[in-house]
Order: sequence, then C-alpha cells, then structure tokens
Amino acid sequence: MTGTSLTDTSSGLYFRDHSQGWLLRAQKQISYEVRLRDGIFRPECTDLLEQGAGTPGRSRRFVVVDSNVDLMYGNRIRSYFDYHGVDCSIMVVEANETLKNLETATRIVDEIDAFGIARRKEPLIVIGGGVLMDIVGLVASLYRRGAPFVRVPTTLIGLVDAGVGVKTGVNFNGHKNRLGTYTPADLTLLDRQFLATLDRRHIGNGLAEILKIALIKDLSLFAALEEHGPTLLDEKFQGSTAAGDRAARSVLHSAIHGMLDELQPNLWEAELERCVDYGHTFSPTVEMRALPELLHGEAVCVDMALTTVIAWRRGLLTEAQRDRIFAVMAALELPSWHPILDPDVLVNALQDTVRHRDGLQRLPLPVGIGGVTFVNDVTPRELEAAVTLQQELGDARTPKTSGDRGGRNL
Amino acid sequence: MTGTSLTDTSSGLYFRDHSQGWLLRAQKQISYEVRLRDGIFRPECTDLLEQGAGTPGRSRRFVVVDSNVDLMYGNRIRSYFDYHGVDCSIMVVEANETLKNLETATRIVDEIDAFGIARRKEPLIVIGGGVLMDIVGLVASLYRRGAPFVRVPTTLIGLVDAGVGVKTGVNFNGHKNRLGTYTPADLTLLDRQFLATLDRRHIGNGLAEILKIALIKDLSLFAALEEHGPTLLDEKFQGSTAAGDRAARSVLHSAIHGMLDELQPNLWEAELERCVDYGHTFSPTVEMRALPELLHGEAVCVDMALTTVIAWRRGLLTEAQRDRIFAVMAALELPSWHPILDPDVLVNALQDTVRHRDGLQRLPLPVGIGGVTFVNDVTPRELEAAVTLQQELGDARTPKTSGDRGGRNL
Repeated sequence: MTGTSLTDTSSGLYFRDHSQGWLLRAQKQISYEVRLRDGIFRPECTDLLEQGAGTPGRSRRFVVVDSNVDLMYGNRIRSYFDYHGVDCSIMVVEANETLKNLETATRIVDEIDAFGIARRKEPLIVIGGGVLMDIVGLVASLYRRGAPFVRVPTTLIGLVDAGVGVKTGVNFNGHKNRLGTYTPADLTLLDRQFLATLDRRHIGNGLAEILKIALIKDLSLFAALEEHGPTLLDEKFQGSTAAGDRAARSVLHSAIHGMLDELQPNLWEAELERCVDYGHTFSPTVEMRALPELLHGEAVCVDMALTTVIAWRRGLLTEAQRDRIFAVMAALELPSWHPILDPDVLVNALQDTVRHRDGLQRLPLPVGIGGVTFVNDVTPRELEAAVTLQQELGDARTPKTSGDRGGRNL
Repeated sequence: MTGTSLTDTSSGLYFRDHSQGWLLRAQKQISYEVRLRDGIFRPECTDLLEQGAGTPGRSRRFVVVDSNVDLMYGNRIRSYFDYHGVDCSIMVVEANETLKNLETATRIVDEIDAFGIARRKEPLIVIGGGVLMDIVGLVASLYRRGAPFVRVPTTLIGLVDAGVGVKTGVNFNGHKNRLGTYTPADLTLLDRQFLATLDRRHIGNGLAEILKIALIKDLSLFAALEEHGPTLLDEKFQGSTAAGDRAARSVLHSAIHGMLDELQPNLWEAELERCVDYGHTFSPTVEMRALPELLHGEAVCVDMALTTVIAWRRGLLTEAQRDRIFAVMAALELPSWHPILDPDVLVNALQDTVRHRDGLQRLPLPVGIGGVTFVNDVTPRELEAAVTLQQELGDARTPKTSGDRGGRNL
C-alpha cells in the first residue's frame, strides 16, 4: 500500500486511490472459559448444559464420547442427560493417534448431519482425551463454518495441554496435525476425578507436558515435580492425604496457568518463537515415525531430553541441572531416549519444523531451569554429538502398557 | 459468569474467584485487500508476487490453476513465473461443483506437502473460478493451521462474489459448503480481462449475484442492469465502446463495493440476518439436487424469482416491480423457474436453512427494488401458492452450454 492514500468509505472499508480497489479491516473478539469443576455428572451440576440454549426437557445436544471413557462413564453420562431431559445423540468414537485423521472427522460430521443441530444454540459436546478433543474441535470449527463446542478432557494431557488451548487438528500424510485450525471451545470443564481411572502410563504422558512448562518458565513447578512426582503418579492426582491433595491441586493449577499465560498474547501464533514449543521441535516427526509406540507426551519428553543435552553442551545448563532434569524424567517414568533417534531422522525432523517456523529453527532451549532462549544455528554435527550423549544418559524405558493408544481410562 | 468477580492476571487472562478457573480474552485483527488490476501476467506487473518473501530468482510459490484456465492461459502463467525467476510448482486442477469436495482438497494438500512451502513467507496462489478459490481457501486455512494465500478469480462470479469475501468451503454429504472456514485471502487481484474468454452462460452466472446486490440494496445498479444487461453479456465486460466500458466498470465496481460494504461489519456472521443471503435460502438445496444442471448463480436466480413472488404476494412489491425483476432475469438469460421446485423440496430446503440460521427463517425479502426485510413466518401453504405463480411467470430456460460445470474459460 506504499504511497497510496486511503479513503474511508465506512468503518473498516477503505478505497484505494483512483478506484484501484479496497482494503477491508475488521476485528474478531475471542473469549473462552476454562473452568475447574469436580464431579460434572452429578445431577445438580449444570455446567455441561449452560452453553447454548434450550429449556428443561427441550434441549438437544450432540455428544461425542471416547470409547474407553464410554466403558467407564457411559451409564453416568446417559443418566445425566436423561435427568436433565436433553434430547441427545451420543456417538462413541475410538480415538488414538493412528485414528486422528480426516476419516474419523468426517464420520462425526455424518452423524451430526443426521442429528441436525441448530448452528449456534446447540453446541457440540466432546468428552475424551486430547486426540478426540482435537478431532471434534476441528469438526466444530468446520461444520457450517463454525459450531460452538464444549470440551471435557478426561486425561491428564487433556487437562493441562490439549484442553486449555485453541488448537484443533488431525494428522495427514504422515505429518502430525498437518491440518487444523485455531478455534477455542466456548467452555472447557476440567474435572480431576476422571484421572482416578486413568492408567499410570497416561498419567506420565500428561506429566511430560507439565514438565515442559516447568522447564521453560517455572522453577517452583519443577521443584514440585521433583518432590511429589512419584506421589502424583501413585495417587493419580486424587490426593489420598492432605499434602498429596495440595500438591495435586497446586501442580495442576501452575501447569494450566503457565500454559494459558503463554497462549493469551499469542493465540494465533503471530509470533513463531514460542517457549511452549519446547519439546515440540523433533517430537512431531519422532512421534509419527514411532507410531504406535510412543504417546505424545513421551515423544515430547524424548525431545526435551535431547534439547537438554544440546543446552548443556552450549553451557546454558550446568551438569547438575542437566542431571536433575534427567532424574525427574526417570522419576516420572518417562523415556529420555528412543532407538528411533538417529541423526538422519533428527535432521529431517528439524527441516520440517523449519518450514513450520517459516524458515528459521527458532529452537527453544532451556537456560538453567525455568528459563528459555531461542537459537537458529543447530547443525547436523551438533545433533549427532548430542544424541550420542543422550543415549548414554537416557533411558528408553519400556511402556507399561502397549497396544491401546487412546488416552485410556481403565 | 454471573455473580463471579474476575481478577486480571495479565492482559486478557483472568482468574475466576476461588481458583475456579480462567477466562481468556483476545482480539484478532484482520485486514485484506481486493485490488483491481488489468493484465496481471504482463511481465512488469508484480502484484502477484508482492505478498510473502523472496528475492528475484529465489522465490518459491505453489500455484493452483483451474484446468480450463490452464488451457487458455497456462503458457502465459508459466512464462510469467519464469520471467520473475520463481521456483514454482503449478498444479492443474479440474474444478466444478461436483468436484468441490474434501477429496479434491486433500489431493492439493498432498502436492503442497511434496513441494514443501514455508509456513508464512510462501503464500499459495490460486487462479480459477469460485469453486476452486473456495477449495484452495479451505486448504490454505487448514494447512499448518493457516497459510497465506493470493486469489485470482477468472470468472465473473469469482470477481464479484466468491473472490471478495472470506468464506471457504467444500460440499459434503450432499450439502452445499457444509464444511468451511472464514479465512480471507491476503490479496485478491481482480482482472477483468479474463472475462473476455468466458462463455456467455458463465457471464450470466455472475450477473445473477450482481442482480442480488441490486435487488436488496442498490436501485441504481438495478437500473444499470436493465439498461446495459444485454450489452454486458454480449461484450463480456470488455467494453467495445466507451459507453459499454463505462457501464462494465461501473457495474463491477458497484457490485463489489456493495458486497464488501455488507461483509465488513459482519465478517464472521455474528448477525445471521444477512441481506446478502438473499437468493441463498432455497438455492443451496435446489442447486445440490439439480446437480449438474444449474450453475450457482442460476440456482440463486431461481430462488430470487420465488422470493420475489412471495414478496409481491405480501404486498412488499408492486406488480410492476415484480414484472421488472422477471424481465431483467430474462434479459440476463437467467432461469426464473426450474422443474425441481416442488413444494416438498422447498419445505425441506427451508428446514435446513433454518438450522443454518440457528432456528429461525430469517428470510430476506425485497421491499420495492433496493430494499430488504426479514421474515420468519413463511408456511408450506404460502410456498406452494408462490411456486405455482412462479411457474406461470417464470422461464426455465435451457442452459446454453451443458456438461462442463467449471467456471470455464473458452
């Protein structure tokens, strides 16, 4: 537009000189709520129904429920909607990383079409793990160019990561989340009680994303993981003692707050240097190539272990800090190495991430514990040296469960 | 949030009381340009390359070209990018309403992945009709959660309608544009010269959307169509005389300006009473059921003829105004009736539109010529009476071309 003056024709619509065309400006306001609420299926708990419209006995809702969640909670979910007189269609969907694709998304669209939701007053409801929330979030963002939705994450990674941001997506063409949108759920309900039935491995999976927040911005959260990590794994954040309960609440709160605090000023990723991308530089490729072996948080942890070594070799961490980080990963029963990590895979992963970060590495590295910096000059040679040391320090622990890859509630 | 106070924790992130959760607020700024430019493939015309980054001889672009456009302009397009030293991949795609689906969209994603664009500095370019722009717009909005793109509409309906708004989409499950997003192209280049090679039927197809703007908001545009409609069809907006050229420029300008003026304050359709939805209440179902017989603008015209009759029966139009409208439709060689219009189809179409308009008809009706009102009380009985009269007044003219459904350049 250089050298061209603009004539306002109405608020936000401008003529260019000599009728060369128009410039249109507009602002979109976004607001969404992330609410902590225990026991959301208790009859007196109306949070799940407050979005959208409808009167008792006349509401309609389309509800997508993860198949593992349905096994555990299906009766309670049906009773809840019956009690409130909601005419609902409950679609049970198997969800895991290998099913996170357009086919699953379009199967859901078929069912929504058959049920026939009104465009804005009958929000979709999704109850499940991070994978299912991402898929249904994408469906909601595309259906009639955007339907409102309510999320109920049932896994730890859902509660602290997938359930609090605005990203939706599916894998495509062997690439993680290659297709997606930035679309907030109108309301997200975080109910810690779901974690009671989650298997130990999936608690660890969520702890990896909590560790990420700790490493790049919250030393006291890191200290809490050092002190309470094994207890959180054992007690599944249910707090069998007062101290355990305090630790569970505090760790959840700090992790979620830290995440939201980073997202808010950069919701659409105008800035591509994002500290919450820590652990997400090599892991998208590692996770997809290792499918179905590594859970998302496990792949992130392997990436964080590698970048911890890179940071230590560059003098950004002391040896003691490096060892503390590896010790916490072990205490959280997370892998800090994996056989798929050969230098060629890492170089390839970095190339794709460079395209994703628009031509630069923008690689977040820890500075001490709780700090971060970004670098653009990692070489294949440096990666090779780092991964060799990572293999010596790291632990490719065998997953405690195998086969099932949903954020499964046992 | 009733009765709950909020504590600001940073700009845009709020705590709810007693750590019940968070409320996140953010603003997205949108700005996009619609530029009039004749002869965009002339070597000295750099508009097509100004978005994104790259230096001469080092730029990369992924370009999607409609197969009919490629037949006519392919050599010129390739020479243009060669001349500017752009490393580009040109994907030729057949596009018409029956191919406006997720399969076509994912084929394009496959090719983009193979070419490997950087996320923000290498915008996609799409050159084609409204269908192809809608598909590529959807791809751009989903690829890595959003890649910039530049649009070059080559049809009249692309220039005045699909190319100036922010809607993207594909048909799904027999429903028109059931999946889509609101995503503006960074730049749209409107080059009237493409219309010189467009067939007569597709000029009419675009004139239907121009007539829509005239009917609900611009009496002088309607008068221009009455006076110059046949000339615009004959001269394909190229203006073989000075008067013809003035009329062509003026009609294009008024139609585009009227459209942008309605879109700007309601870009995301927060308000569902939209006068630009005129002609789009029954036509989505009519168009999809009649596939491949009616072009989009033709289906819109059939809808406008029906709602003109409804408006006249309600006393919103005089008989003289009603007849002027039907006369202009005939002069533009557009159908004003179609055998598929039986009352059952219309009731069914209205039901789906009511879901789309969130539970109300919000049916725009003309008030005189150039005015509009919205009603919510149309009954099946009224539809039946109106469509009977429409059949008497209307003209189900045979399309001048058949088979090919792309916005085809001959």
